[in-house]
Amino acid sequence: MTSDPAQPFRTEGEPSGRAFRIGLLGHGTVGGALAELLPSRADHIAAITGIRPEITGVHTRSNGTTAAEVIAGADLVAELIGGLEPARTYVLEAMAAGKHVVTANKQLLAHHGEELWAAAREHGVQLRFEAAVAGVVPVIRVLQESLSGAHIDRVTGIVNGTTNFILTRMAETGATYADALQEAQQLGYAEADPTDDVNGKDAAAKMAILARLAFDTPVHITDVAYEGIEHLTGDDMAYAKDLDLGLKLIGTAERVEGGIAVRVHPAFLYRGHPLASVNGPYNAVTVESEAITEITMSGPGAGGPQTASAVMGDIISAMIPPASTPETTQSLAVVKDVESAFYVHLEVADRPGVLAQVAQVLGLQGASVKSVVQKGLGENARLVMVVHPLLESKMLAAVELIAGLDFVRGRPRVIRVIEEQFV
Amino acid sequence: MTSDPAQPFRTEGEPSGRAFRIGLLGHGTVGGALAELLPSRADHIAAITGIRPEITGVHTRSNGTTAAEVIAGADLVAELIGGLEPARTYVLEAMAAGKHVVTANKQLLAHHGEELWAAAREHGVQLRFEAAVAGVVPVIRVLQESLSGAHIDRVTGIVNGTTNFILTRMAETGATYADALQEAQQLGYAEADPTDDVNGKDAAAKMAILARLAFDTPVHITDVAYEGIEHLTGDDMAYAKDLDLGLKLIGTAERVEGGIAVRVHPAFLYRGHPLASVNGPYNAVTVESEAITEITMSGPGAGGPQTASAVMGDIISAMIPPASTPETTQSLAVVKDVESAFYVHLEVADRPGVLAQVAQVLGLQGASVKSVVQKGLGENARLVMVVHPLLESKMLAAVELIAGLDFVRGRPRVIRVIEEQFV
Ligand SMILES: NC(=O)c1ccc[n+]([C@@H]2O[C@H](COP(=O)([O-])OP(=O)(O)OC[C@H]3O[C@@H](n4cnc5c(N)ncnc54)[C@H](OP(=O)(O)O)[C@@H]3O)[C@@H](O)[C@H]2O)c1
Ligand SMILES: NC(=O)c1ccc[n+]([C@@H]2O[C@H](COP(=O)([O-])OP(=O)(O)OC[C@H]3O[C@@H](n4cnc5c(N)ncnc54)[C@H](OP(=O)(O)O)[C@@H]3O)[C@@H](O)[C@H]2O)c1
Repeated sequence: MTSDPAQPFRTEGEPSGRAFRIGLLGHGTVGGALAELLPSRADHIAAITGIRPEITGVHTRSNGTTAAEVIAGADLVAELIGGLEPARTYVLEAMAAGKHVVTANKQLLAHHGEELWAAAREHGVQLRFEAAVAGVVPVIRVLQESLSGAHIDRVTGIVNGTTNFILTRMAETGATYADALQEAQQLGYAEADPTDDVNGKDAAAKMAILARLAFDTPVHITDVAYEGIEHLTGDDMAYAKDLDLGLKLIGTAERVEGGIAVRVHPAFLYRGHPLASVNGPYNAVTVESEAITEITMSGPGAGGPQTASAVMGDIISAMIPPASTPETTQSLAVVKDVESAFYVHLEVADRPGVLAQVAQVLGLQGASVKSVVQKGLGENARLVMVVHPLLESKMLAAVELIAGLDFVRGRPRVIRVIEEQFV
Repeated sequence: MTSDPAQPFRTEGEPSGRAFRIGLLGHGTVGGALAELLPSRADHIAAITGIRPEITGVHTRSNGTTAAEVIAGADLVAELIGGLEPARTYVLEAMAAGKHVVTANKQLLAHHGEELWAAAREHGVQLRFEAAVAGVVPVIRVLQESLSGAHIDRVTGIVNGTTNFILTRMAETGATYADALQEAQQLGYAEADPTDDVNGKDAAAKMAILARLAFDTPVHITDVAYEGIEHLTGDDMAYAKDLDLGLKLIGTAERVEGGIAVRVHPAFLYRGHPLASVNGPYNAVTVESEAITEITMSGPGAGGPQTASAVMGDIISAMIPPASTPETTQSLAVVKDVESAFYVHLEVADRPGVLAQVAQVLGLQGASVKSVVQKGLGENARLVMVVHPLLESKMLAAVELIAGLDFVRGRPRVIRVIEEQFV
């Protein structure tokens, strides 16, 4: 391929390409994680794009820099300060100076989105904000790109991980709201001041942004009615179980007669709802449209590295033109014999010592039994086992041996098991 | 905004922009659906992009056209024929002529991907293929763009809707494999010849494509070991329930010692696995990486309109430069009073006629009770109801009236319910 630095694709045999300068505004949870993640992926990014991203400046209130100098020295500015001001002013200044901007700031966009998007169009720069809604869950890109031509009817989301963690704990352990909140704080899923999470305001800002993109109409944070989870009780959770419903903090943006409605409130979901099984500090968003039926996306809604990954995806997109499939940079071996846990189903003669002999044969191949269910069937018995992970070749060898045992009737049946702690 | 046709953004007050010519190769399930969908969205696409997509030619074996003339008259060619040849030749010819290509053809990419992607790079055109894997689930775009900088450890997918439908029916109704397959055929979820779906070959082609993108290394269909679902029995399903596991046809692409492993086989999943709750003719893909933890995306895996929507998203992306947020084209009213079903929780004096009076007050506001749970607590009782959808304002009015009834103790508690058949 080409090694012309104006060509953004891979420069073969050339480890580093042209530099792409990134200025960081803010160096807290997300900014700090980005400053750690980016250098570790710079070689890979240079290999696939021909351009090498580099952090060329960092501004905080306390590190003796000015925002202006960080902006001046960058091709792209990542705004990771939060809040309305000075974030708004810095983003406008950066775009006016022809710099692309990536931000994780939902409040900024829910209050001043139209002004900022207009500035991006005016100055011909990109303003990307995947991390502002649902962390690394790629809902912004999917709404802006995959579904830009779709007629969307409704967007439903669990867009606050703190409250989803609290509700999950209340449902699973019967904890009170206060205890679940305290646990969330201890585990780092809730801030010291969780007010805007638990009262629904954080989710409301995110739903304003999603509604804007889904319906192509201006939506301001004040258009979103919201209600939090502070008043929910263990009793509500118990009834939810009785009624076979899950209780979640749900954001809804939908077309209704006369316009659209955007709101955030606790809601019971029927068990089969795509969001009903989203548990813990996760976020998820369902988009409905007649032509697509529905798509659901889920993943961690916050966290420094996760949010920084979303910021990094935006940075790479701002660096390069869209979707080419670059040449492969790896030539990895394809390994065929891999480890798996197994379910083994045997029909055997119902007599003493059968299980012991089967376990012995398995043991010879290094397979150890995790659980067994045995059911008598008159003369014969059915023996069903789950076996801890081992190489497939070893498992197949064990099965051949077992099939040859005199008390085994018919072919053993073997199916892989994907376990929670599978390594 | 600008009305310069070279500028791809919205041309205000100008209903149609410059034309973007699309040539269709194939006019079957997907091609036919695209030919219907695209004109219905052309105004919207022109409004947000300033360019109007138009189908300018359609080629099939039987409609008296040649592929060459359809390609010559197009800016972008949508290959919706399927199979290896002549699809491969047409795609190469189109790219050599400088045309962008969008395809839904997984077999073509799993066999000839490197050749085709190299041709796209050589000729500076886009080759997009969202619809080739998991229908409208945007996994290709997310791997290529959102996660292009991530170090991916594993991709796990349910990438064949036919088999997932069959397994869901076997699990839910105890149907045999043969009966569930027949049902799938009757409902249009399986072809008359379902061989490549049920034996895992279709899923294997899709996993080859996902592995190529995730690990940036060449992966050919022959690198993928696969096993189908034809040999599964109702008995396996019954044991799955006993063991609290779900049985799915799972594709896995992962880093292992010495390289990567890519395979498709039936597998038991623990209940909390993100793919365990994916039921019916749906597809879903989970991507794992240390920095992001995991993302899961799900949606319909096939179907004419769904697949055509994925093709349309690719077409729009090929038409315009990436992610700007265009000016809004709508100014929809934000409606605050909307319909919802409700859960109502009352503490009442335990005496006769209480339920009747509550139901009467609800009825005056147009609320009708769907289900009731009543629990006595000595002097008092707890009355929990689910009420059919009605306007929130009406529900709040009913709650005020109920709160004033002399047998009601404390504030009634009201939580919205999102129901399966919510309209
Ligand atoms: N944390 C998450 O998991 C998460 C997830 C999604 C989105 N976000 C969003 O990401 C953004 C950053 O969040 P964070 O959690 O990283 O915040 P944080 O940990 O509080 O860090 C904020 C950073 O900005 C700096 N800063 C604060 N005020 C400033 C000012 N006026 N001028 C210049 N620098 C200033 C701070 O340093 P000094 O105090 O030294 O100035 C600090 O380095 C917010 O918009 C947030 O909503 C966060
Ligand atoms: N159906 C789905 O839900 C779905 C989902 C995902 C991906 N896909 C993929 O989408 C592609 C199209 O699938 P489909 O279901 O739409 O197929 P289909 O209904 O069988 O339609 C195929 C079309 O191509 C034409 N055709 C066949 N052979 C041709 C040839 N040699 N030269 C020119 N035209 C030819 C056929 O018309 P004539 O017979 O008149 O030539 C017909 O119009 C395939 O790659 C498939 O894997 C389909």
